[in-house]
Amino acid sequence: MSETTQPAPAYFERHIFFCLNERPNGEACCAQHGAQEAFDRCKALVKAAGLAGPGKVRVNKAGCLDRCAAGPVAVVYPEGVWYSYVDASDIDEIVESHLKNGQVVERLRTPPELGR
Amino acid sequence: MSETTQPAPAYFERHIFFCLNERPNGEACCAQHGAQEAFDRCKALVKAAGLAGPGKVRVNKAGCLDRCAAGPVAVVYPEGVWYSYVDASDIDEIVESHLKNGQVVERLRTPPELGR
Repeated sequence: MSETTQPAPAYFERHIFFCLNERPNGEACCAQHGAQEAFDRCKALVKAAGLAGPGKVRVNKAGCLDRCAAGPVAVVYPEGVWYSYVDASDIDEIVESHLKNGQVVERLRTPPELGR
Repeated sequence: MSETTQPAPAYFERHIFFCLNERPNGEACCAQHGAQEAFDRCKALVKAAGLAGPGKVRVNKAGCLDRCAAGPVAVVYPEGVWYSYVDASDIDEIVESHLKNGQVVERLRTPPELGR
């Protein structure tokens, strides 16, 4: 344990997590709203753009991110920017603007009051 | 899209992701090395300490974090601190030191050269 945290270089410059959770009892969940397709599209676009890998971008599967009311959602770290996306063009914009160029896509940000 | 990113309050103060990936062909993976038990323990400890929830800590399942050579691994955001843990007491220390008090556990940090 250390009082003075050594800043290490980030292993990934940006790390985006997609909620792919399926709720078992028919409750609304990201998986029912195109989350897998969005994840697949994001991953393919990042790879095609040469953005994937250490020091660059990682597109990651995640379990429930606990903001079901805002789903389908993804979160980009280290910025901690949450997105509620609807369709493929939203994913394209997140990749091109945020993951590639570091510009947050304001229109897709999850409203702060939406949680579980 | 915006040139000036508005800083939003973080939805979670700290968000830890555990790789729970199982590789199908017998290759080494976090799931073979106690990752599920570590996730369950971390989640239970965070909940018991009253740390779980918006504005506080989220303990999350994740797919492959792509640092298999360092597994089992977990990453804490927004700090971007990676841990390679071995046993239950490592999880206890990560919860008590980092998730509760914001002090990185230096001895458990993933060596920066270890990746996929």
